[in-house]
Amino acid sequence: MNGAESLVRTLLASGVDTCFTNPGTSEMHFVAALDQVPGMRSVLALFEGVATGAADGYYRMARKPATTLLHLGPGLANGISNLHNAKKAGSGIVNIVGQHAASHLAIDAPLTADIEGLARPVSHWVETSLSAADVGRDAARAVQAARCAPGQVATLVLPSDTAWTPGGQVASALPVPARAPVASDMLDRAAAALSGPDSLLLLGGEALTVENLDRAGRIAAATGCALLSEWANARMERGAGRVPVARVPYPIDAALETLARFRRVVLVGARPPIGFFAYPGKPAVLTHPEAEIIALADWAADLDGALAALEQAVGGADAVPVRAQAGPPARVTGPCTPETVAAALGQCIPEGAIVLDESVTTGRAFHGATLGAAPHTWINNCGGSIGYSLAAAIGAAIACPDRKVLTLTGDGSALYMPQALWTMAREALDITVVIWANRSYRILLGELSGVGVMNPGPRALDMLSLERPVIDWVAQAGSLGVPACRVDRAEDFALALGRGFAEDGPNLIEVVL
Amino acid sequence: MNGAESLVRTLLASGVDTCFTNPGTSEMHFVAALDQVPGMRSVLALFEGVATGAADGYYRMARKPATTLLHLGPGLANGISNLHNAKKAGSGIVNIVGQHAASHLAIDAPLTADIEGLARPVSHWVETSLSAADVGRDAARAVQAARCAPGQVATLVLPSDTAWTPGGQVASALPVPARAPVASDMLDRAAAALSGPDSLLLLGGEALTVENLDRAGRIAAATGCALLSEWANARMERGAGRVPVARVPYPIDAALETLARFRRVVLVGARPPIGFFAYPGKPAVLTHPEAEIIALADWAADLDGALAALEQAVGGADAVPVRAQAGPPARVTGPCTPETVAAALGQCIPEGAIVLDESVTTGRAFHGATLGAAPHTWINNCGGSIGYSLAAAIGAAIACPDRKVLTLTGDGSALYMPQALWTMAREALDITVVIWANRSYRILLGELSGVGVMNPGPRALDMLSLERPVIDWVAQAGSLGVPACRVDRAEDFALALGRGFAEDGPNLIEVVL
Repeated sequence: MNGAESLVRTLLASGVDTCFTNPGTSEMHFVAALDQVPGMRSVLALFEGVATGAADGYYRMARKPATTLLHLGPGLANGISNLHNAKKAGSGIVNIVGQHAASHLAIDAPLTADIEGLARPVSHWVETSLSAADVGRDAARAVQAARCAPGQVATLVLPSDTAWTPGGQVASALPVPARAPVASDMLDRAAAALSGPDSLLLLGGEALTVENLDRAGRIAAATGCALLSEWANARMERGAGRVPVARVPYPIDAALETLARFRRVVLVGARPPIGFFAYPGKPAVLTHPEAEIIALADWAADLDGALAALEQAVGGADAVPVRAQAGPPARVTGPCTPETVAAALGQCIPEGAIVLDESVTTGRAFHGATLGAAPHTWINNCGGSIGYSLAAAIGAAIACPDRKVLTLTGDGSALYMPQALWTMAREALDITVVIWANRSYRILLGELSGVGVMNPGPRALDMLSLERPVIDWVAQAGSLGVPACRVDRAEDFALALGRGFAEDGPNLIEVVL
Repeated sequence: MNGAESLVRTLLASGVDTCFTNPGTSEMHFVAALDQVPGMRSVLALFEGVATGAADGYYRMARKPATTLLHLGPGLANGISNLHNAKKAGSGIVNIVGQHAASHLAIDAPLTADIEGLARPVSHWVETSLSAADVGRDAARAVQAARCAPGQVATLVLPSDTAWTPGGQVASALPVPARAPVASDMLDRAAAALSGPDSLLLLGGEALTVENLDRAGRIAAATGCALLSEWANARMERGAGRVPVARVPYPIDAALETLARFRRVVLVGARPPIGFFAYPGKPAVLTHPEAEIIALADWAADLDGALAALEQAVGGADAVPVRAQAGPPARVTGPCTPETVAAALGQCIPEGAIVLDESVTTGRAFHGATLGAAPHTWINNCGGSIGYSLAAAIGAAIACPDRKVLTLTGDGSALYMPQALWTMAREALDITVVIWANRSYRILLGELSGVGVMNPGPRALDMLSLERPVIDWVAQAGSLGVPACRVDRAEDFALALGRGFAEDGPNLIEVVL
């Protein structure tokens, strides 16, 4: 058995059975091993960012890592921005990068690069296998690292000679450390702090599962505290019958206003709320300057246990949480605007849908409009690097083949990684992609004034415009094998969503705003 | 004057007047400065790899750096693979990356990343400005670093508060070190070594200008030595009337065969010929094991001076070099194959054209077929990271608005960076894009056997196929505003090329092979 085969067999033994890849010469033995070892699903991406983004989306839904297979330093480089997003979301990924044979590195061939150096800023764990005999053991350790709470990026560099040389040894799965429990003194402080409407329970990470939202809802009912989540959540359960939790707003002034009334803030899986960017004359931490912040449990801790203990400490076991009510059926009509498309989404999201939200500006009305939609999962981009949602949708759809996937993305974001559409078509994934075609980097219009640029000139504004030429998303999708339509009225949008969900395989709706 | 304005004014004072950008919030003051300072051409890209690739192509033709403007760590990350290609080509780039304000870095916001760590593997020079007063001086030093021979990647990180704070100071241009002359003892060795057909003068970098090719041609005529260039050349002048120089072949067996007869090899601007990849049982350095290698001048040295001195040392001043002859006009017909499209190119390349060649497998017959074409410039990808040529074409077209640009790219490579088409349309650049649609990562079929994988199974072969679904390049181009056509016969390809060159603005030809 060569090193490549020991790699595939070890990954399978550790529970990793899905690979997102764009391989090259140095990875050909791994590719060949796919035919010798059954059980590894290998999904081809036409750009490495699609592979890493898909691995992130896969982790969010499967709660276990997939592996990537990337070609040398440049292949890794193309995947870095979505590894950044994965790292910020706490997604576990076994990130395998081919490398030249050791004998070839010294001569600095065209594709030679400092792979470990490129990987380190976006990885929790980086190692290079030294021989075929090491590959199995290293792979098991990479999976172990990827599975450490909340989920980590583990980069394993695999020189081509370690793949093709005999002597590979399959390694067994390694144990994963348990999540840390909360300290009892912190629990007492948190329980005492939560009292009345000037106290806030701020949730993040796995505090947003159905069960933990129920616990949080009972805590709020028992104490009168408010509930909020971070602006960007790796995964949140929402919809009718679930405990509704609003997100801290993105615009800094709105966030400051939302948070101003809280004097005591308990963090469970969340960090103190901070500005997405620095703005002249505005604070970085957005809570009231005199607010007491109690960090009960960080995102790597045992959040189920933390919320259960907190619920008990505040006497919340019998409290009745507020739950979102299903809205009445309504027919939404009129031109597509952020408000009408939000209303249409509230009517159309099917039960069990996975919603990947990269609606940078268009989506600000979505929370309220979809609170009473059928129960669904909501996924945000946690790293801020745009071009995430099309790729992540692939992984979510592969992790959950029985659920509908809905991707909501601005046009500027979507054009970062359009190649994802081809993989959706190839794998016949059940994904409805909605492109908000506002034909600009709309968010930057607001950011200009946010950072103090008033009255921007025509050359500045030209750098924010996607109108010259207009991007034809129906043709773009069609070129990559995804059927598509264009709508500019909300009633047509609702009909298109219904058709998209009714059919198998991917489809795209360009919404002209 | 704020730091951003001092940056733009300093860049202009140092001769940098072209910016390829995808800006974000942290770069808004730089964008605003474009309206306050005339003279900086700012070109918007929809993906950062397009911006960095364009800056590479610009340098190849302008022989001076452009600047990029990228958004934080993720924006840099998306540009890394084409910075890798630029670094390997010796292209100078002033790579400007926005950063959070210093006060914001401590709180680890979503977009926070180790920018210097990401930049270092692809940069020769990395610095972060500490205050608005430093920005001008740092920018002048970045331009100086970028202009060091043969051209370097200089990354300047610009925290947003250094951009918006008053106190910016414009800095003057700094001197650039002269290129090193050759040592006289090396010159004597090289002159003695070049004698007869078992000696080789191997050229690279700026040894491939028209004047240096003439010198090399006279040296070959005087000594009987052979001439070759490296496999990948940053820029080479070719065509009828010029001294023809073949490239060392890419396939390792062909390269070994080509180089086997040489016992003395003189390097001018080139490195010893090496394999692109490591292959089991094959050498890394491809010259004969007993060949003497004389490194007369590396790519940063004074190559004009080296070749002039060598010409004199071998008494070549009056020698008459071999020159490529214009081929007879011919009408090429038949299905599109690598041979017929090569013949069509030989007939159709217009005088003064800039050809960006990313024809990974289709292009192996191009050299011979285009030797007698009208005089033109040929540009290769020097770093091996595919997805280069569409982006680089933008920079070449902007550097040389009076020349026709022809991009030849495989479909697999082109789909790495299709967003470049939109910028071509937006800037109305005179670029003809040819997509070789073989609907596979064709090169990897050869590489599988090259690394010893015989009889690959169906799952391995599936990872190399782009047929499911077929990519519609006419629709892809149309979606981004570039008119396109599809051909499958060589006579139609020739007609389409003629139409493309006759019209202004970009166009695309999908060639089905």
